[in-house]
Amino acid sequence: MTTFIRHRGDYTWEDVRLLAYKEEQGTHFKQVTRQVLSAGSPDLFAELRYFEVAAGGHSTLERHEHVHLVVIGRGAGHCLVGDEVFAVKALDAVIIPSLTWHQFRATGTEPLGFFCVVARERDRPRLPTEEDLKVLRADPAIEAFIRV
Amino acid sequence: MTTFIRHRGDYTWEDVRLLAYKEEQGTHFKQVTRQVLSAGSPDLFAELRYFEVAAGGHSTLERHEHVHLVVIGRGAGHCLVGDEVFAVKALDAVIIPSLTWHQFRATGTEPLGFFCVVARERDRPRLPTEEDLKVLRADPAIEAFIRV
Repeated sequence: MTTFIRHRGDYTWEDVRLLAYKEEQGTHFKQVTRQVLSAGSPDLFAELRYFEVAAGGHSTLERHEHVHLVVIGRGAGHCLVGDEVFAVKALDAVIIPSLTWHQFRATGTEPLGFFCVVARERDRPRLPTEEDLKVLRADPAIEAFIRV
Repeated sequence: MTTFIRHRGDYTWEDVRLLAYKEEQGTHFKQVTRQVLSAGSPDLFAELRYFEVAAGGHSTLERHEHVHLVVIGRGAGHCLVGDEVFAVKALDAVIIPSLTWHQFRATGTEPLGFFCVVARERDRPRLPTEEDLKVLRADPAIEAFIRV
């Protein structure tokens, strides 16, 4: 079990792999990296990850049963949670409730980095269907925001 | 349920109460505050808290069954985890395993602030007995570090 995970600068950590955001390929996300800070301690009740969205990039628009506890670590951007779009910046916290559509975008000229805690046992994310997208796009603010 | 918790500056958050570190009084900690960022979402699997230790202060030397996922948010200091003392600074992560003695100290001239995630359902912390302290103090580095 790893107990100390040293930040080595520039939002990377010693002995933590810099990974692609998702194992599968896709066009539903753009310019996102993932680091599992708790990877050396896989038996915990939760995982601690750090994601970074490059300027202009976005995470997947998705939802799932499990919740996210997020603390913005770096930069600024916007996120959709349910039917609201929030401007987020370093040190803001975001809680993504169960089965709630969400997406993070680095909307400015800087990357958006965030820590995200999830339960170890969790369901797989689900992408929106055409019908889901129709409902989401009925709100002009959401239509303007989402990237799929 | 609260989904967005805005940092309003200086490591305080909108609609989040700045609390004493522990409800009970004690001499086993010094100059520590607590903010429960997830207090508006009490039904999650976990809680997200932010603790801040003023320069010269320390958290309680304690252990418990539940684990901590910690990300240092501000400043620098040291922490004991088990039988090791680590120098910690902003953006380092620390995992406190089950039943492991731990203590955070703001050993320099700046406060030490950290985010700490715990399971919602958890046991109460236990303080060291005289016998525990004897074992801990057998290691000179631990003896020099701990505050009780």
